Amino acid sequence: MIEILKNKMTPERILSAGVGLEREGLRVTPQGKLALTPHPSIFGDKLGNPYITTDFSESQVEIITPVFDSVDDAYHFLEALTDIVINEINENNELYWPYSMPCDIPEDEDIPIAEYQGEEGKKARAYREKLIKKYGGKRQLISGIHYNFSFSDDVLETLFRESGGELSYRDFKDKIYLKVLRNFLRYRWLIVFLLGCTPGLHGSYIEKCLACMEEVDSSETFLSQDGTSARNGSCSGYKNEIDLYPSYASVDEFIASIEEYIKRGDISEAKELYAQIRLKPKKFNDVLGSLKADGIQYLEIRTIDLNVFDKCGIAKVDLEFLNIFMLFLLLEGEESFDTWQQEALINEVKVAEHGLKADLELLDHRHWTLKTAWAEDILEKIAEINEYLDLKQDHCIEVMQNRLRNPQTTYAERLKQLMTEKGYLNANLELANEYRTDSVSRRYCLKGFEQWELSTQILIKEAITRGIKVTPMDAADNIIALEKDGHKEYVKQATKTSADTYITPLLMENKVVTKMILKENGIPVPAGEEFFSVDEARLKLPNYVGKKVVIKPKSTNFGLGICIYDRGGTIEELLEGARIAFAYDHTILIEAYVAGLEYRFLTMGDEVVAVLHRRAANVVGDGIHTVQALIDKKNEHPYRGDGYTSPLKKIKLDDQAQLFLKQQGISASTVPRPGELVYLRGNSNISTGGDSIDYTDKMHPRFSEIAMKAVRAFGAKFCGVDIIIEDYSNPESAFGIIELNFNPAIMMQAYPFEGKERRLGYNILKTIGLAD
Amino acid sequence: MIEILKNKMTPERILSAGVGLEREGLRVTPQGKLALTPHPSIFGDKLGNPYITTDFSESQVEIITPVFDSVDDAYHFLEALTDIVINEINENNELYWPYSMPCDIPEDEDIPIAEYQGEEGKKARAYREKLIKKYGGKRQLISGIHYNFSFSDDVLETLFRESGGELSYRDFKDKIYLKVLRNFLRYRWLIVFLLGCTPGLHGSYIEKCLACMEEVDSSETFLSQDGTSARNGSCSGYKNEIDLYPSYASVDEFIASIEEYIKRGDISEAKELYAQIRLKPKKFNDVLGSLKADGIQYLEIRTIDLNVFDKCGIAKVDLEFLNIFMLFLLLEGEESFDTWQQEALINEVKVAEHGLKADLELLDHRHWTLKTAWAEDILEKIAEINEYLDLKQDHCIEVMQNRLRNPQTTYAERLKQLMTEKGYLNANLELANEYRTDSVSRRYCLKGFEQWELSTQILIKEAITRGIKVTPMDAADNIIALEKDGHKEYVKQATKTSADTYITPLLMENKVVTKMILKENGIPVPAGEEFFSVDEARLKLPNYVGKKVVIKPKSTNFGLGICIYDRGGTIEELLEGARIAFAYDHTILIEAYVAGLEYRFLTMGDEVVAVLHRRAANVVGDGIHTVQALIDKKNEHPYRGDGYTSPLKKIKLDDQAQLFLKQQGISASTVPRPGELVYLRGNSNISTGGDSIDYTDKMHPRFSEIAMKAVRAFGAKFCGVDIIIEDYSNPESAFGIIELNFNPAIMMQAYPFEGKERRLGYNILKTIGLAD
Repeated sequence: MIEILKNKMTPERILSAGVGLEREGLRVTPQGKLALTPHPSIFGDKLGNPYITTDFSESQVEIITPVFDSVDDAYHFLEALTDIVINEINENNELYWPYSMPCDIPEDEDIPIAEYQGEEGKKARAYREKLIKKYGGKRQLISGIHYNFSFSDDVLETLFRESGGELSYRDFKDKIYLKVLRNFLRYRWLIVFLLGCTPGLHGSYIEKCLACMEEVDSSETFLSQDGTSARNGSCSGYKNEIDLYPSYASVDEFIASIEEYIKRGDISEAKELYAQIRLKPKKFNDVLGSLKADGIQYLEIRTIDLNVFDKCGIAKVDLEFLNIFMLFLLLEGEESFDTWQQEALINEVKVAEHGLKADLELLDHRHWTLKTAWAEDILEKIAEINEYLDLKQDHCIEVMQNRLRNPQTTYAERLKQLMTEKGYLNANLELANEYRTDSVSRRYCLKGFEQWELSTQILIKEAITRGIKVTPMDAADNIIALEKDGHKEYVKQATKTSADTYITPLLMENKVVTKMILKENGIPVPAGEEFFSVDEARLKLPNYVGKKVVIKPKSTNFGLGICIYDRGGTIEELLEGARIAFAYDHTILIEAYVAGLEYRFLTMGDEVVAVLHRRAANVVGDGIHTVQALIDKKNEHPYRGDGYTSPLKKIKLDDQAQLFLKQQGISASTVPRPGELVYLRGNSNISTGGDSIDYTDKMHPRFSEIAMKAVRAFGAKFCGVDIIIEDYSNPESAFGIIELNFNPAIMMQAYPFEGKERRLGYNILKTIGLAD
Repeated sequence: MIEILKNKMTPERILSAGVGLEREGLRVTPQGKLALTPHPSIFGDKLGNPYITTDFSESQVEIITPVFDSVDDAYHFLEALTDIVINEINENNELYWPYSMPCDIPEDEDIPIAEYQGEEGKKARAYREKLIKKYGGKRQLISGIHYNFSFSDDVLETLFRESGGELSYRDFKDKIYLKVLRNFLRYRWLIVFLLGCTPGLHGSYIEKCLACMEEVDSSETFLSQDGTSARNGSCSGYKNEIDLYPSYASVDEFIASIEEYIKRGDISEAKELYAQIRLKPKKFNDVLGSLKADGIQYLEIRTIDLNVFDKCGIAKVDLEFLNIFMLFLLLEGEESFDTWQQEALINEVKVAEHGLKADLELLDHRHWTLKTAWAEDILEKIAEINEYLDLKQDHCIEVMQNRLRNPQTTYAERLKQLMTEKGYLNANLELANEYRTDSVSRRYCLKGFEQWELSTQILIKEAITRGIKVTPMDAADNIIALEKDGHKEYVKQATKTSADTYITPLLMENKVVTKMILKENGIPVPAGEEFFSVDEARLKLPNYVGKKVVIKPKSTNFGLGICIYDRGGTIEELLEGARIAFAYDHTILIEAYVAGLEYRFLTMGDEVVAVLHRRAANVVGDGIHTVQALIDKKNEHPYRGDGYTSPLKKIKLDDQAQLFLKQQGISASTVPRPGELVYLRGNSNISTGGDSIDYTDKMHPRFSEIAMKAVRAFGAKFCGVDIIIEDYSNPESAFGIIELNFNPAIMMQAYPFEGKERRLGYNILKTIGLAD
């Protein structure tokens, strides 16, 4: 089989696999107590949100990634979801418990079972009530990582084609997955050793379980002596009441054995079988029927403890290792005997409860073998596969070899140390707080979507939060599909949507047409006229000498080619302005100049959702620091970055800024007076370090009404209306509409330098009918 | 007053004036009989169409231009409307009678009075019934040009500001217009002489009028001996029963005198006063009330006969002269005496009935004066104004001086000659046929809109025809507004409208996204994949060696960067194709190649409105002519032109074409066999002389269904779907969707080289809800 892979496929194609991750975790108070509040309503219907839901308990947030064809993508999405959950529960001052075993929990009767709505919800709730009676509530609060794995069609089809057997493709696939499953059961003890991370329990956990541990401080922290994974041990984890060994010889035999268990009353339905690894069907609501009809779709591995040392609950290197481990399970031969499943269980429990014991022995085909030697042997086989197929996965293999050879580097051992030092709750709370700080500081962006515009990241984040299915379609063009309850919308660059018509932006990008339409609709526009040639301008410009005017090209172009005569101009100056404007368009405009500050009114649907003023890059003196020092300090703001991935840009003291300072008679080493505002640029662009200042609540509503009136004249839904206003607080103030922008940026309003952050992703979703 | 103009305004600003034209004309049979058919229904509701309606009779089509601020624009629009009317009535094999006096007409009881609908319609009809009783029907069939004139606000405001009187601006304006009106009455005889064009009558006209004429052939043609304008004469024209001389001293006095006439029963309402010039109010349905409330808006001059020598009924040079003549009337002093209006009427009638008499004398302030000398004097004054104000209107003044000095060049004299030669009916029918040929040959475009894309011209033409108000907004961007019954739509480039959403074209312009969406919606797309780098292509291209594939850049770009391997390619050839495609985009596609011809399915709303195949520039041999001669002949087709103003382009025998011939072993001087198809290009672009061939009715409906399904997947309304089909008549034929185009051109389908012309402007209007 390895020869087929070697000869017929590239390493990249061999490694491509379907990877999906699920991560559970408890919401806890800052003191480490189970949060008894409801699941945040922003996550919407628990049965409808494909990304964020609850597991057993209302306090147990479950994160689910879609299936990706690379570990990197799956991991990044998991991180994105984790950031979202941490930020949302932080709104309620709760933390995301990083550890598989529960926090400080109450007795069964006070553990909140997940609440659901509707018919489906009733069933979900009834199932949980039965579980709490049968297994107790505390055990149900254990969290973990579920690793969903499928070989790529490419790999399966190549193997099928080249192995030339007599099976159908579906039967061939089933056979492959059953073999991998059996081998996983055999070798799962290695995963428990390498990834195990539940060495301790809290005093509030089940007494019977605490009894197997050592109490290290005043009835709070209980630690195992040499165990790696209490969660996978015989007592404390997710286990059936009696050990069950279904047949994995074929799909049919598997189904028959499950049906037998149900008949006997050992379990009530297929999903109650707490196997370490599950065969996954196409249709979740009919596991056995669908496995029979459609065959095995993928495998779900449930062995993995949450890794407290990673915000996401699992390290990327572990995922990388798991991927090649699955390949090993596929390629490794197998020998069956009656009690192989019992032997595998014995090995698992031994490693879970005593994995850190140096001379631990395991049963290898009914013979006791030193765990370390056997593990070395397996890792060596994996290393050989890696080398033979040129898979370049050396790093993750080396990491695992190191864990094996230096057990103090295992998660279990590291965490035991930490809990010994700080106590059970504090050890976990410190990590939870660290992850919170990290997620909160990067709340403006979305992990794994760095190549997307920030505006699109904001929208995707909001959609995911609310359980709207996101399909990234083209990162370079920032096109995504959003879908909920059968309603699908395509969106480009966050605000190019079906809510606007095709013609609207085309009208707005033409200044002359824009003005005609505004005028027709009774919206005062600066008086003026248009010229089609310099000759025509020469003929008519004498009428404008000495008047406050602006000369600009007809088409919008980031403010290029605009000359402002705020104290009036001579005929020569006006003509020069006309010549400049003609360099940008074949038609130019001259308009009355309105004094004042420029404000951006961001409108979505039928409302102004944010008002912003942009201020040129600046620092404010404190009488102590130099301009340079003040810049450095200002640049520390978490929103200031470089390029297009942050809502604000770092201020650069480049030649232009230095010249600008020089013109004011100062330099980088000047110490400005306390409160002195020092500008570093003439333009107010955010891209050159300008500040974004929120005016939404300060702006007089009259001007928002004017902005909406303008927008309605174009039938627009998403628009950025730029208005110059002399006094924003005075409804009688002079004003002039400068421009209507049809693809308004949202990041500067969502995350302003000064003022309230605004949830604009929500406004977008509302406008396109995907949120209420 | 002239000093103010001279000192305060540029010549251009002085000449700018509001000009609107109305032209009436009879629909006639090819034999010159009055057409008794209804007004073409395509022109819609007569009271709702602002451009094309009926006058007194159902057979009298009235054309109305909006007000323009230049003679050129008004004239061009008049020509556009004339072309539309001639083409539409030609559908019914009728001609547009070019002469003011009626064609071969029936007796009163058979003259069809205009039919109207609704309450307003009832009133309009009742008024006409009253008129036919009072004045007889034949007289009501006389047609003419109404010239609506207003000074520009610029001129009026400058005069008002600079003359510094005590009047309000409104009173000042009224005073100006009243003076111009009075002077027009005084000098109108000159217009009757210069522009008069009704020297004859048809035998079917009112007998009493025929009696004043000379019968030149068998009771058909009756000609005046030395008259210029029977229409303005005492007998045959549009006159009140008794001569009425309302006061024009002020608006109030005018109103009082009209009210007196109505009281006396001379006329039934204000509009029944058949004045040569009218004061025009703001609100047409309340002439006197509105004149009182809002003042005079403009003047309507009704003296002008249709000029049979111009398709539009008036020559541009005459309009130019009228404009400067109005300025003369403004600047010329006046002296009033009791009988000045009677004197003016005497002069008018004398010129109308004997204007061509060499020694005709007129009454100038109660003294007989030689008409020629007086006319010379007036033209001299006009020439002086022209020179003093540097208006550059020398040409039209010289033309008028020439008419005065050489009466044989007047329209009246020229037409008399023609009627003498050919007879009354034939003289007019020949001209009508000539105009028809001209209008029909240019039916694909719209006069005066040459700087607009042909697609937009087609749309504007259709809108005007149906009485939808068109507002050109930006010619360079091809943006127009269309409005009917309060429903307004903006359109850019004919098919960019509010019917499509903003996101639709953005999805279509991305080939990868397009394919994803088609696939999701169950539309078969050519199998393939995308590459992001040449390295990736190198890795995966080996799978495509020897297969029929196409390699292309991700984004649409006029077919640039596409390589077709219709017989399969080597790895080197495929890699070269990948490199070429990467020159156009950062992502490229490889797809299965589908053999066949490419068809463009043009969809609008919910239907495929046209299917077209483009064939590369070619000629078909006849065994006699050379390739060069065949090209020359083919290029004579009226649709073949240069640039973007014709639906087809002339074939050019350039280097490329000559090389293409050489590769086939022939040259421009080869004589192809009869029926031999000789291609001159490899590409099928219309822009390089290709043929457009209509397949709408031949295409198997299955493929139109596929096109619509694709379009619906994008929620698109206007789309050009390019599909390669092996056999268009076979529903089982292989096919592949190549591209969806979001701004499909319509001119090649509207006016194909081969096949049926299609009224696509109508489909556009229907799709945006402006036509049923």
